[in-house]
Amino acid sequence: MVRPKLQIALDHNDLETALADIVKVGDVVDIIEVGTILCLQEGHRAISCIRSLFPEKIIIADTKCADAGGTVAKNVAVAGADFMTVICCATLPTMAAAKEEIKELQVELYGDWTFEQAQQWLDLGITQAIYHQSRDALLSGETWGEKDLTKVKKLIDMGFNVSVTGGLTVETLKLFEGLAVYNFITGRGISAAPDPVKAAEAFKAEIIRIWGE
Amino acid sequence: MVRPKLQIALDHNDLETALADIVKVGDVVDIIEVGTILCLQEGHRAISCIRSLFPEKIIIADTKCADAGGTVAKNVAVAGADFMTVICCATLPTMAAAKEEIKELQVELYGDWTFEQAQQWLDLGITQAIYHQSRDALLSGETWGEKDLTKVKKLIDMGFNVSVTGGLTVETLKLFEGLAVYNFITGRGISAAPDPVKAAEAFKAEIIRIWGE
Repeated sequence: MVRPKLQIALDHNDLETALADIVKVGDVVDIIEVGTILCLQEGHRAISCIRSLFPEKIIIADTKCADAGGTVAKNVAVAGADFMTVICCATLPTMAAAKEEIKELQVELYGDWTFEQAQQWLDLGITQAIYHQSRDALLSGETWGEKDLTKVKKLIDMGFNVSVTGGLTVETLKLFEGLAVYNFITGRGISAAPDPVKAAEAFKAEIIRIWGE
Repeated sequence: MVRPKLQIALDHNDLETALADIVKVGDVVDIIEVGTILCLQEGHRAISCIRSLFPEKIIIADTKCADAGGTVAKNVAVAGADFMTVICCATLPTMAAAKEEIKELQVELYGDWTFEQAQQWLDLGITQAIYHQSRDALLSGETWGEKDLTKVKKLIDMGFNVSVTGGLTVETLKLFEGLAVYNFITGRGISAAPDPVKAAEAFKAEIIRIWGE
């Protein structure tokens, strides 16, 4: 089984603090996400500054694009993003237009969506999906449950590269053992840790322990 | 019947061209929208620069927010936005968190949504919705049809202030005669016109002709 990647989400309110955090842990993680909040606060420079510091890393613009897919994808690709997110309730023409302008699209699964829709995304040639654990579930103290894991497995079996996110800790990674998860996304799990480098290394070590090098 | 407002959507790729357009027509329109593309390209400065030029106008940040509602709403409110958009597939807790941080929220109706969901938004105290004519319908040459108008009327009857958008021209406004539309949104209908000021004035004159001063 291919080792899942580790992604840090930079959900900072300003470029200054995002840069201060990413220069510490950027070399440890596989993927750097310019989060929605940071995109909306700092615009394309958030992407281009991080691309400039990490020319070899995969960079994701978490635009959660719902419309004007072609223009948004072109803009973030020019700024240096490899992947871009679209929201699952975007129309198929919006997704198709975005797909033309960037290396890969990721569909963010929020709220209500169906496996029939997921098949339509695959049919468009979109091969990545992001599964969020329900915020309500997290707030009520639940962790990743069988219901979530079943859905993640089904998406993987359909052919998606599935990223998972929501309340992930080093301890919760083993819940996914045996699943070919593409990528684990964490934000404050790394950036708000007392020692962000150690936190990123601990995530990576646990991924390697479970899935191998 | 209250006169519907006129909103210009600034869907520019950079602040320079957006500012050049809005200084021409900002005084004619009622509401200025900082479009998704512009928000993602220029960040909070797109909002704050336009607020600085038009201290008295209603300004909307078209973030189409899907998550982290509280933070996104707080950020755009600090930058000077009065209203912010959330996507209809955002969860209720996301909408509720956003609502706390800004004067008013607008739910953007894209893809699949139901009137049952719409009632839940009203129950949260959200009183604005944005009805988009289907992009597919527009591309296939259709204009606003009975199906769209029936849905708009139902949303108004439920108690929403409804903004409508998608392929609007001065000629299509009369299709909405008799409906208490809150706001008409147009982008390139004004900014790409040979004479943007004349185009904005023509929209406003037609609104006044149909709905009164």
